[in-house]
This record gives sequence, structure tokens and C-alpha cells, in this order.
Amino acid sequence: MRVAGVMSGTSLDGIDVAIVDFVGDDLHVVGQHAVAYPDDVRRAILAVSNSVTHTGSIARLHFFLAELYADAVRAACERIGAPLVSLDLIGCHGQTIFHEGESIEFLGRRIASTLQIGDAAVIAKRCGVPVIADFRPDDIAVGGQGAPLAPFLDWRLFRHSQFGRIALNIGGIANISVIRAGASLEDVIAFDTGPGNMVIDGLIGGFDRDGAVARRGRVNQPLLERLLSDPYYKRRPPKTAGREQYGAEFLAHFAGLPLADAVATATELTATTIARAIPDASEVIASGGGVHNSYLMERLAAQLTQPLTTSAKYGVDPDFKEAIAFAVLAHESFMGRPGNAPGATGARRAAILGKRASP
Amino acid sequence: MRVAGVMSGTSLDGIDVAIVDFVGDDLHVVGQHAVAYPDDVRRAILAVSNSVTHTGSIARLHFFLAELYADAVRAACERIGAPLVSLDLIGCHGQTIFHEGESIEFLGRRIASTLQIGDAAVIAKRCGVPVIADFRPDDIAVGGQGAPLAPFLDWRLFRHSQFGRIALNIGGIANISVIRAGASLEDVIAFDTGPGNMVIDGLIGGFDRDGAVARRGRVNQPLLERLLSDPYYKRRPPKTAGREQYGAEFLAHFAGLPLADAVATATELTATTIARAIPDASEVIASGGGVHNSYLMERLAAQLTQPLTTSAKYGVDPDFKEAIAFAVLAHESFMGRPGNAPGATGARRAAILGKRASP
Repeated sequence: MRVAGVMSGTSLDGIDVAIVDFVGDDLHVVGQHAVAYPDDVRRAILAVSNSVTHTGSIARLHFFLAELYADAVRAACERIGAPLVSLDLIGCHGQTIFHEGESIEFLGRRIASTLQIGDAAVIAKRCGVPVIADFRPDDIAVGGQGAPLAPFLDWRLFRHSQFGRIALNIGGIANISVIRAGASLEDVIAFDTGPGNMVIDGLIGGFDRDGAVARRGRVNQPLLERLLSDPYYKRRPPKTAGREQYGAEFLAHFAGLPLADAVATATELTATTIARAIPDASEVIASGGGVHNSYLMERLAAQLTQPLTTSAKYGVDPDFKEAIAFAVLAHESFMGRPGNAPGATGARRAAILGKRASP
Repeated sequence: MRVAGVMSGTSLDGIDVAIVDFVGDDLHVVGQHAVAYPDDVRRAILAVSNSVTHTGSIARLHFFLAELYADAVRAACERIGAPLVSLDLIGCHGQTIFHEGESIEFLGRRIASTLQIGDAAVIAKRCGVPVIADFRPDDIAVGGQGAPLAPFLDWRLFRHSQFGRIALNIGGIANISVIRAGASLEDVIAFDTGPGNMVIDGLIGGFDRDGAVARRGRVNQPLLERLLSDPYYKRRPPKTAGREQYGAEFLAHFAGLPLADAVATATELTATTIARAIPDASEVIASGGGVHNSYLMERLAAQLTQPLTTSAKYGVDPDFKEAIAFAVLAHESFMGRPGNAPGATGARRAAILGKRASP
């Protein structure tokens, strides 16, 4: 069975597509392709995300993004040399424009909610392939926060009867999935360790590729100690670090430092908070943009007792893990199997995720 | 196979549930139940419908309404004496908060769109039954206007190899489905004939049950002639009459008339525009709230050459036809069969409708 996974994250970079073949219990990544959002699309998404807008703007974008997703799948098929007709299924995350995993009081009930747009029926009709989309509401329906969903892939890829493994994703925020030896899906624990690239990116106004900036600086130890004293890092999981936690206010801590020193300190904060959060295991498997910061990877490796590798070792491009995750989650749903990790989302039970649209 | 159909229309009355059994090609309505929306829910829906609002208000209501739909299905099962576990499937229309069936220019593409809320995954998880919802986007994806969808049921119920039949629904707006003898789904034509109860209701500020008000009045012929001269009534289908077409501005035509005369004239307008729109056929089968206005039905029958009956003759409560329609459409989707009537929606082809969520 051949499945395309489609992901577009809140960073609004664009659309990632991965094509994955499933043979029995094995999966093989055939190829991947990324399409950047044009600026006007990025602005239109921002305008309806968690803000005051017109209902019609959301509805139109819901149908418009579906066209872009369909185009991205077709472009990926062409680029990868996997004909569209060879696809059996598409799994599409959609674009999150609202997420409130913790329930609030609403018209007399406790309501948690999430909203991903990009209509699955339009994608299915354009591509001639069934589409499973809208994975998060099912987890919320069984008491979960609707996030994170990547731990399922971590468990699927990295579980081992004798070795415990940690899947580490270094995006804006860093998070880990803890997959102990012999873990069932229900045993998987996942949480945010703290900042990933976000503080570093915020200081530089861009990405510190290979840690070029940080390598020129020196860690400011007193500041580092002060930042590490944040009680978040000692709190027991499940826990979630919001993007707002490491925004402009947080960057003010670094005021007065030379840029290189600030970035070196921020890099050390990321490496140290990740390292301290990681429990006993035989391997740490990294993915996400942070793997392209070789200095961060070195600093992290220096503080870990376990070997640090990347998901590439397991056939998964670290930049496309989420797209692959939604191919895998769609495949699970298609097979009638659950895809959430209750220990990661807080759900009462594992649940079949997603809604299926017909071509 | 037992299917619950759930409908909540733009009139915001509340939620209609019909339970329908399918045995081969036959369908049998087991029972029906209606739940009114509380006032605060009605206000919350209005606040996000085709207006400026916060994304979060839509997301929360999307999850909240799903809880109400699930409650309504459970209440219907109890009332009807059909245990929840006897349900095989739920078909839920959702609550429309935006509909733009004609495409507009949007970020450089032609985009038509529609938005129905009430998350299917939440309903499925609450009821332990698969749910098919969100029927309109599939029709839009194949070039249709996403409406009307009721003609499928009309065709399914009333088609006959030798007799042509007209299904007439008298809601706020009146519309007909024309099902000629031996018609295939593609042959069905449907369109709005003009006002249904809307003008009468607007004048009275309520429903004219049994035409009690109209019966006391006299038709003002000059006004009626003037209203009948609107070119809409002569235009060839497909055509759609918007609710805005018969709002406050339209009511101003009746200013100065005694209420009973105004209502008698409005009733005659509805009866006459329906009668004139109806082509050759052997029977006119009415449904919708208008069937409870016996005076309207009398005036209509007087102008028709065909016998006028109601859908009750075919086992379909005239007040629950739409709820039954969404049970039937869900059943069709479940069977992998299309549910739109291209001659009604303008779609390029018949399409499988809806997205399926798992329990």
C-alpha cells in the first residue's frame, strides 16, 4: 500500500509531502518533496489563525488550501517518480488555525477544541485518491489534548523489545518521546523539554546553520544558571511549552550580551534542558531542523550518556518526519487501528484518528 | 442496516433526528425526534454565521454542537425505542455557518466554499457509531454549488418507471425536484420556485397554522400581479432564491394592507409561483412546514392540474424529510455510491459525499 503524508506546520514554511510504501509491518519511505507557501498565502493563514476574522475567510481558505495540498501531492509524485495513480491513500494534517487542548467552560460544558483547515474532499476529488485528514479531534473526543501525535510514529519506528529509545524532535520547541524496551503504544510518554531552535532563531533573526554564530561566542554561565532555574524543567510530564513562553519577553534576558555569547548561551540552554529531560535509554534519535545545527548537536552529545543519532539511520529524513507521521497515521486509520499515544496526549484511551473522504 | 439522520437547518429551530432501516433497496422510517436549540446556543450560532468572529468561537462551537448532536441521537434512540447499539451509522448534516456555492476569485483561484460545523469524530466517539458528515464539499469539489442535496432522497423515494412526480418542499423558501418517468439521478432537476412560508411568517411574526389569518383576508389582486411580474419566476432553472430576497425590504410591499389581506396575498403568491413552476407530472408530493398551512395547500391544489399529496403517503413525515435525507445520503456514501443530483447542484458529475469518522 502506497500512502502520501502531507504536513504543513504552524511555522507556515509551506507543505511537506512524503510518499511511504507499507508492506506488512514494514514501511519504506519512497521520497519526499517540499513546497513553500507564497507570501500572500502565509499572510492569509496568519489572518485567520487564532484571531478575529470573517467566517467566509476561513471557509474560502479551507477550500483554497485543499487545492494547494492537492497540487503539492501531484508535484511530489512527479518529482519522486511515483505516479499519482500508484497512490492508495493520502494522509493530510491540514493547517492548524486554532488549538485549545485544555478544555474551557463553554455554554455550560467543558469544551476542548482544535481546527485544521484544507478540505479533504477537495483533495480526494482532485487526486482521485481517498484522503484521511483531521486527526486531532478524535483524540480530543476521548479526553486528550489532540497533541502531540508524532509519538505514534516514534513508537512505530523505534520500539524495540530489549532497547529503550528516545525520539527527540528539535523544532522551535524541543520534545521527546520515551519508548522504553518492550513498550506498548499506551506506554509511550512524550513531552516538551523546553526551547529548541526558537530562542536561537529569535536572537539571530534566522537559523544558526552549523552553529556558526554560537561557535564564536562564550556561554554566560550566570545567565544560563538563572534560565535553568525555571521550574518548568523540573516539572513532571505531561507538560507542554507554548511558543509564547520563548517569545520577545524571553529574549530580553539576553539584552546586553554580544550576539555570539547570547546565541552560545541559548544553544547551551537548549542542549542542557534536553539532556536533563532524557531518562535512561540506549539511544537518542534526533529529527527536526535542529539537527542542521551541528554545534547544538555536539553540545547535546557532550551532555548525554547515550549515543546521539538522527532518524536518517532509520530511513527517515529528519526534515520530513512529520509528513511521514501523517502517512503512517492515515495508514493506521485505514486499517482500523488507533494512532494516538494516550501517554503523550492525556487521552483516556487509544482511538482511531481522522475522517475519510472519497475520491 | 439502521441509520440515524441528523439535520439542523439555517432556521436554527434545533436538531431533527430520524432513524431509518435499510433492507436491500427498501427503506423504512423507524421514528423521529426533534430537540429545540436553547436560546444561548441559537445566539452563539448566529454570532459565527457569515459574520466577523473569533476563530476560537467557531472551533469551540464546532466541538460543542457535536455534543448536542450526540445527545440528540441518544435522546431519539430512547424516545423511539431503538437502542443506540442497534445503530450502524449516523449521517449528520451539521450546522451551516457559511455557504458560497458560486465561486469567487480568491488568492488567484476560483473558489466556492461551504462550512458546516459539529465535529463528526466527537459524535462517533460519544455514540460508539461511525458518522458520515460534511456532505456538501464533495459536490463543490466537482463543480457543483453544494446545494440542494434533498433531491437525491426525492429521486430515491419517488422515482417511477411510468409516472413523473414532483417533490415539493415548502420551507421558508419553496423548492421542487422534478423526477420524470424513468429518470436517472442525473436526470433530476431541482430549483427554488420562490417564497414558501417566509413572507407569510414575516408578516405575522409567526406561523399561519391552518391558514387561520389568510382565510380571514382577501387577496389584493393588483399587488399580487405586481409581485408575480418579478422576472425570477420566469427564469429557467437552475436558480436559487436567497433568504435575503424575501426579507424586510420585500415585506414593505404589503405596507398599508390589513394584516389578513396581506397574508392572504402572500399566501396566494406562494401558491401561484409554485403552481406555475410545476411542469407536467402525475403527482405533486409536498413536505416542509408549509403542509401545516391547510389554506396554502388548498390554494395550491386549486391551481394544480395534478393531485397534491404529502410525503406521508410514502412513509416520510413531512417535517423530517431532511433528517431522513441525511440518513439516506450517509447510507449511500457508506455503500460507496454518489448522493448529489448534478441537475440540481450544477456539478459536473455525481460524487460520493461526506467524510467518515470512526467510533
